[in-house]
Amino acid sequence: MQRIVDFVLELDKLKGVTRATRPIGLDRYENSAEHSWQIAMLAASLAPYAESGVDIQRVIAMLLVHDIGEIDTGDTIVYAEEGAAERKSAERVAVQRIFGLLPAEQAGKFMALWQEFEDAATPDARFAHAADRAMPVLLNLANNGQSWRENGISHARVVRRIGPPIQAGCPALWAYLEARLDDAQHRGWFGAA
Amino acid sequence: MQRIVDFVLELDKLKGVTRATRPIGLDRYENSAEHSWQIAMLAASLAPYAESGVDIQRVIAMLLVHDIGEIDTGDTIVYAEEGAAERKSAERVAVQRIFGLLPAEQAGKFMALWQEFEDAATPDARFAHAADRAMPVLLNLANNGQSWRENGISHARVVRRIGPPIQAGCPALWAYLEARLDDAQHRGWFGAA
Repeated sequence: MQRIVDFVLELDKLKGVTRATRPIGLDRYENSAEHSWQIAMLAASLAPYAESGVDIQRVIAMLLVHDIGEIDTGDTIVYAEEGAAERKSAERVAVQRIFGLLPAEQAGKFMALWQEFEDAATPDARFAHAADRAMPVLLNLANNGQSWRENGISHARVVRRIGPPIQAGCPALWAYLEARLDDAQHRGWFGAA
Repeated sequence: MQRIVDFVLELDKLKGVTRATRPIGLDRYENSAEHSWQIAMLAASLAPYAESGVDIQRVIAMLLVHDIGEIDTGDTIVYAEEGAAERKSAERVAVQRIFGLLPAEQAGKFMALWQEFEDAATPDARFAHAADRAMPVLLNLANNGQSWRENGISHARVVRRIGPPIQAGCPALWAYLEARLDDAQHRGWFGAA
């Protein structure tokens, strides 16, 4: 029991890992713990748009664990294009340390979910990626492009980076977002190209 | 799709609902969105201590939705002893409004999970309650009793309020916490009786 307690208290640190997006109407940046909750709820709500065979409960479990490595590495905006392999390697070391606080059987379960998300090769993992990629876009669309403008991210860069994984995991969601992103471009909510 | 988007953006408000507990080492109060993530992870980690027949995936889904009514009502410290029926009634109105943003079928699923948690009559719901009740205690035990001291909560009041639901949902967790709470009393981490 003490190992489980040590693990869940270590998880507390994810509440202090900040992301590039602000919650709507709040004067602070979002943290990765509340983000993890919101994308789990988005995936659950999107269930009617999942391809047959997707197990939403597994998707939720994957989304709840997928950012835990950021406790050691911090969050990096999805549009960063350099150093991705090094960041993933560091995150893997981090989750091995953090999940390793737990008894081996439970650690193995979380590690397998984390790895399945990273590999993005199963329908469950692809659906999870679609929810994870879509959420900051939805917040930006509700925030007049806050993190795109703050970080100089262009429309083309957003479409190039998030279009393929959302299309692969949840085509109906990408069809919706593509139209919203076009509209946002007309409104001037992006940074320079 | 727009109804799902409206719902998940409405959920963003839970990031602004603050609780009585502080995350370890942070100079702010915890919000209900990050709390919901952490208790889902606690329940997942506690799986080996669940009685047979508990479906951890359903427990996680219940924990992710159970605080959503606080978007309209705010959080109330668990030790508040007056007005509980009125608060629950207001939370029910709130979740009906918020889940009602979704298409009816998904709204019904979330509402059923919320109600099952509130009724605390199934093994899944009792296990969920144990995780929900235990988490702020674990944070207080790591914070030298921060919210107990700030709010004048005595050891006897903690034991009376959280002992029965944690014992009912996860006896091994209560056995662990009971000993930790006794130790905390010796250390003077509670408010006046």
